[in-house]
Amino acid sequence: MIPRLYIDAPLASGGAAPLSADQAHYLRTVLRREIGAPLRLFNGREGEFAGEIADLGKKGGIAAIAGRTRAQDAEPDLTLFFAPVKRAAVEMIAQKATEIGVRRLVPVITQRVTAPKPNLARLRAIALEAAEQCGRLTVPSVDEPVKLADLLEAPGVDRLLFCDEAGDDEAEDWGGREGRAAPVLEALKTFDRDAEAWGVATGPEGGFTPAERASLRARDFVTPATLGPRILRADTAALAALVLWQAAAGDWRRR
Amino acid sequence: MIPRLYIDAPLASGGAAPLSADQAHYLRTVLRREIGAPLRLFNGREGEFAGEIADLGKKGGIAAIAGRTRAQDAEPDLTLFFAPVKRAAVEMIAQKATEIGVRRLVPVITQRVTAPKPNLARLRAIALEAAEQCGRLTVPSVDEPVKLADLLEAPGVDRLLFCDEAGDDEAEDWGGREGRAAPVLEALKTFDRDAEAWGVATGPEGGFTPAERASLRARDFVTPATLGPRILRADTAALAALVLWQAAAGDWRRR
Repeated sequence: MIPRLYIDAPLASGGAAPLSADQAHYLRTVLRREIGAPLRLFNGREGEFAGEIADLGKKGGIAAIAGRTRAQDAEPDLTLFFAPVKRAAVEMIAQKATEIGVRRLVPVITQRVTAPKPNLARLRAIALEAAEQCGRLTVPSVDEPVKLADLLEAPGVDRLLFCDEAGDDEAEDWGGREGRAAPVLEALKTFDRDAEAWGVATGPEGGFTPAERASLRARDFVTPATLGPRILRADTAALAALVLWQAAAGDWRRR
Repeated sequence: MIPRLYIDAPLASGGAAPLSADQAHYLRTVLRREIGAPLRLFNGREGEFAGEIADLGKKGGIAAIAGRTRAQDAEPDLTLFFAPVKRAAVEMIAQKATEIGVRRLVPVITQRVTAPKPNLARLRAIALEAAEQCGRLTVPSVDEPVKLADLLEAPGVDRLLFCDEAGDDEAEDWGGREGRAAPVLEALKTFDRDAEAWGVATGPEGGFTPAERASLRARDFVTPATLGPRILRADTAALAALVLWQAAAGDWRRR
């Protein structure tokens, strides 16, 4: 297994890259690697490079950079807006959303959120480690939490897939917007999927309130969708929606 | 929140059902419910019934059964064949596969499996609790582990979606079976999805060996499929494949 490391510095064939104290510790003490051991390096901008350990000390190290092994490629523009839930579930969301391939993770505060503010530094570390392990060329960002109302005013995406776990109650009035929520694959068929920045929004345990659901559905950029006939946990719903988006509209369509 | 309980006994309107010692403890001590508190009951065969607590003691209790609230409906015939991985990941697979809607969970021993035999009693308890919480009318079975070679001789399913995480190496010879693995949604399009019992097979960390991959691909009932360009962890791959099967071929297609 060749260690694969994210480097927060420019990378170029024939050059050198700094290794942080954490990375040096990981290579030396956890993996027991020595000078000359091979590495893979990426920085989120310039692709992936082969390299090797040139120096390794207690305060950091240096990697010698050989040739480029992969060019930076375009990644789908997908953001997960998730309501914070319990710590273990949020950490799983960060890890698996990174593997599935989101660009950005944004905690969204809704009325039924009871979990404390997530530990963003911890989520960033989890996303970074998952990016190193899954072969991505970027590390997703983990943004500061936003309130749902603020998100709806400035979503930063062109379309938002709203996972309406509560399903449809035909007695409810969606402010003139007709129709029941469709299964995700059906909902995604109606859009120009390649041209836009997409978001996926999932609620906390207990879901969105009726007022929140009406507010989401009142926006033209919001597409409501259902995730099957069973009640999914918040973390399962987030991962399921991301998987379906990637398979129907993202880079899982590639052979 | 009305507690929803799986009852291992016949259920009929106007009758009574036994509550186990564990269920009585859960109702009395964890949820602090008393005689007369409402319940939902299901047994995997006769639908779901409303009921209430009629008696509650240290060694068990009795539920009085009122009317039926849901008829038993047909569920997709989907089995997950998963290679055992670390305990936490296997437990997450059992919980989330139940929510996503599998009928059967089967641990499969492959060459690269290094995890010990999973604790089947623990996985059954997790599946039961997940079934109670997600509103299913059945509890999936958790079978004894089988070896991959034995599974391929007697799969017990009509079609097996083989998640070939390692992807395609064009230099490899698939014993005369042509072509690269397709993305899951594309692979599923080619089958009569409603008529058959399906399985989904996912490997351990490190994937299947080349010999195992060739052996899987040599079977007519096996359909190889890919899960995107990144390397998914074993648990992520299992859940992603189940979600895609349900959305493309299972009961997530319903509005």
